[in-house]
Amino acid sequence: MTITPPESPAAFSLTAAREALRAGRLTATDLTRACLSRIALRDNAVRAWTCLNADALAEAATIRPDDPRPLAGIPVGIKDVIDTAQLPTGANSPLQGGLRPGVDAPVVQVLRAAGAIILGKTDTTEFAACGRDAATGNPHDPARTPGGSSSGSAAAVADFQVPFAIGTQTGGSTIRPASFCGIPALKPSWGLITTEGMRRYAVSFDTIGLFVRDPADLDLLADVFALPPAPALPPGRLRLGLTLTPYADALEVEGRALFDSRAARLAPVADLVPFDLPEGAADLDQLHRCIQHCEGASAFLHLSRTQGDLLHPDFHDRIEYRTGFTQRQHYEAYDRLALLRMQVEDRLAGVDALIAPSAPGFAPLGRTPGNPLFNALWTALQLPVMNLPMPGMELPLGLSLIVRRAFDRQLPALAARLAAAL
Amino acid sequence: MTITPPESPAAFSLTAAREALRAGRLTATDLTRACLSRIALRDNAVRAWTCLNADALAEAATIRPDDPRPLAGIPVGIKDVIDTAQLPTGANSPLQGGLRPGVDAPVVQVLRAAGAIILGKTDTTEFAACGRDAATGNPHDPARTPGGSSSGSAAAVADFQVPFAIGTQTGGSTIRPASFCGIPALKPSWGLITTEGMRRYAVSFDTIGLFVRDPADLDLLADVFALPPAPALPPGRLRLGLTLTPYADALEVEGRALFDSRAARLAPVADLVPFDLPEGAADLDQLHRCIQHCEGASAFLHLSRTQGDLLHPDFHDRIEYRTGFTQRQHYEAYDRLALLRMQVEDRLAGVDALIAPSAPGFAPLGRTPGNPLFNALWTALQLPVMNLPMPGMELPLGLSLIVRRAFDRQLPALAARLAAAL
Repeated sequence: MTITPPESPAAFSLTAAREALRAGRLTATDLTRACLSRIALRDNAVRAWTCLNADALAEAATIRPDDPRPLAGIPVGIKDVIDTAQLPTGANSPLQGGLRPGVDAPVVQVLRAAGAIILGKTDTTEFAACGRDAATGNPHDPARTPGGSSSGSAAAVADFQVPFAIGTQTGGSTIRPASFCGIPALKPSWGLITTEGMRRYAVSFDTIGLFVRDPADLDLLADVFALPPAPALPPGRLRLGLTLTPYADALEVEGRALFDSRAARLAPVADLVPFDLPEGAADLDQLHRCIQHCEGASAFLHLSRTQGDLLHPDFHDRIEYRTGFTQRQHYEAYDRLALLRMQVEDRLAGVDALIAPSAPGFAPLGRTPGNPLFNALWTALQLPVMNLPMPGMELPLGLSLIVRRAFDRQLPALAARLAAAL
Repeated sequence: MTITPPESPAAFSLTAAREALRAGRLTATDLTRACLSRIALRDNAVRAWTCLNADALAEAATIRPDDPRPLAGIPVGIKDVIDTAQLPTGANSPLQGGLRPGVDAPVVQVLRAAGAIILGKTDTTEFAACGRDAATGNPHDPARTPGGSSSGSAAAVADFQVPFAIGTQTGGSTIRPASFCGIPALKPSWGLITTEGMRRYAVSFDTIGLFVRDPADLDLLADVFALPPAPALPPGRLRLGLTLTPYADALEVEGRALFDSRAARLAPVADLVPFDLPEGAADLDQLHRCIQHCEGASAFLHLSRTQGDLLHPDFHDRIEYRTGFTQRQHYEAYDRLALLRMQVEDRLAGVDALIAPSAPGFAPLGRTPGNPLFNALWTALQLPVMNLPMPGMELPLGLSLIVRRAFDRQLPALAARLAAAL
């Protein structure tokens, strides 16, 4: 199913909205009002938002067309595990109690300094980890999940409710919902955007994710978040590695068929070469899980100590090491993971980029966030990943584009070249 | 110089205070009042605190002798880069503006759930990183630094103003001030205690540190923070590795002489063997610096974007990569560091513990926090480190005891055995 875009400025991409604002063809008030109207129309089906900013229109009214800030007057959605001074942070948990921390997380401070208008908070899996699912429906088919844990951010952007949104990824919480919702998204190299002020899950993997509707929007956000310069992609034909990951058996039939057929369409613009992951790469998901659960044991201890009776059993499982890992194993997992990271990086130097599935298949029915198996390995390897939607299918599905660490800025240009062929 | 302990319950260690409270020989009110009296007497010289909790005595009055919580009624100092709901967090920066985030950092929540009384916030180097120095003086000689960045936490505990305190370490910010102030302290294995709610500097290194006056106090705190079980040390003679690190040339004359003479005193209880660090270990400080500065660039971006004019030039240097590192180098540094970490861990398996200097020498005159060269390498390696004060010197100096990752609980027992010989 495709979503019919609204006949209003809410249909503008981030880049298009910015150009219209700068040219005086659009005001921040009209853009914000259009987003709010779209939300009013669709919220009953999509339920992307946990709260909206009652001051958004008043803030928009202060934006002048000659405001030089890169995001002046552009509304943004913030995943509800990230602190905002104006709005409560609920993390979809009864334990947070509508917390208002009184200060914006650094990532929100950077957005506000760039002129963005915080439109509201978006729904999430509990603490972006486990426990309760988001209430959000997939805008392409509300009976299905939009994916998680950044459920609301992905759904709101895909549904033209806001031009861009901030999510997070610890396993597959940005790329998977982007795949299920059919929009571009970037999971940057680990560490390039600070995660201070977001609820912690696994500090070695927690990453801020960016959801947009046009790959070029990511260039603008790369400037806003000061992502480092990267070498340009070579002109002419590209050399692209293809991998189904060590978990190809988990691909659903339509996921496998679509990956193969769409990858084949890239032949006019790229040499496609099989990309062999190093020996032991099949352990990446288990290494990721070990570290995630053991870091989670530290991250969630205070919830157990202060409100243990209210805490979902999933969290108790991690805190009490019921998932079968020990802290000593967790340190050994760092080391094994580091060796695999070096080997994958070495092999990545032999291609311009790597292409892999973003999800096992289409978004499942229901509200559980889906399987992160095709995302967690890249998260564990610290690599930047962009979801590129594959066009013309009954439901959305995406390709993961992957480059070397710190080369994040290559991804939007790569996506533009591949999108033409797809 | 030695500090004359007060003739009051403020002289009690954490463990002694707990026993006295449980036996009904002491009330939390009397303990808290004794700490506040000691602060009133000494604050003019030591200046450890940025603010005190006006509700501390009222909270103490609610503690009953049969309170089963492990820290019931024990006052604690919190480094002023860690969020507290009751008290502002200033981070020794004009940019924080007396921020009150409205919620305790998880580490503070765990302490409060254990019954501890937050006595106040302790002074720090700006954002525990660079920029402004703490105003704190060394309680052994207020003309000297107590070390930094956890200046106030170390000085307050050493001066009998509070039985224990929480600090942080990203380079040497716990072990170095513990050495300069002559108290035991633990820098746990990286990742075992969550750093959420502390101002971020370098996420791969940021660690919560624990300052006490008796090594046994660390056993109690290990329970409170759910540090994992570790194999017991072997009974009888120990096998201890000795290293001056690759930076022995930076040891001051008295530091070198004291290390050699005190290490020799351990011969009755341990076989002392030279511990050779792997080839390339001399690069550890530079690898640490590269990662610290590049992670700092992400951590401090929002300060530059929101209040750049007020930001100390040290921070601008990191954000603008003026220190000469690139983000790509920073990822390569993770990998080189991981290889060294594995090699050091392998060698640590051949000894019961490692002994190294905690600082180049005595605390320097002035307020600059001192050289972290003998700490940053162990921080980079994720290893747990305990400072063990060497007794009977004109000014304090400590030994670093180091064991394998996740074996933190071995350190207090090791310290007790070595302290007898020293």
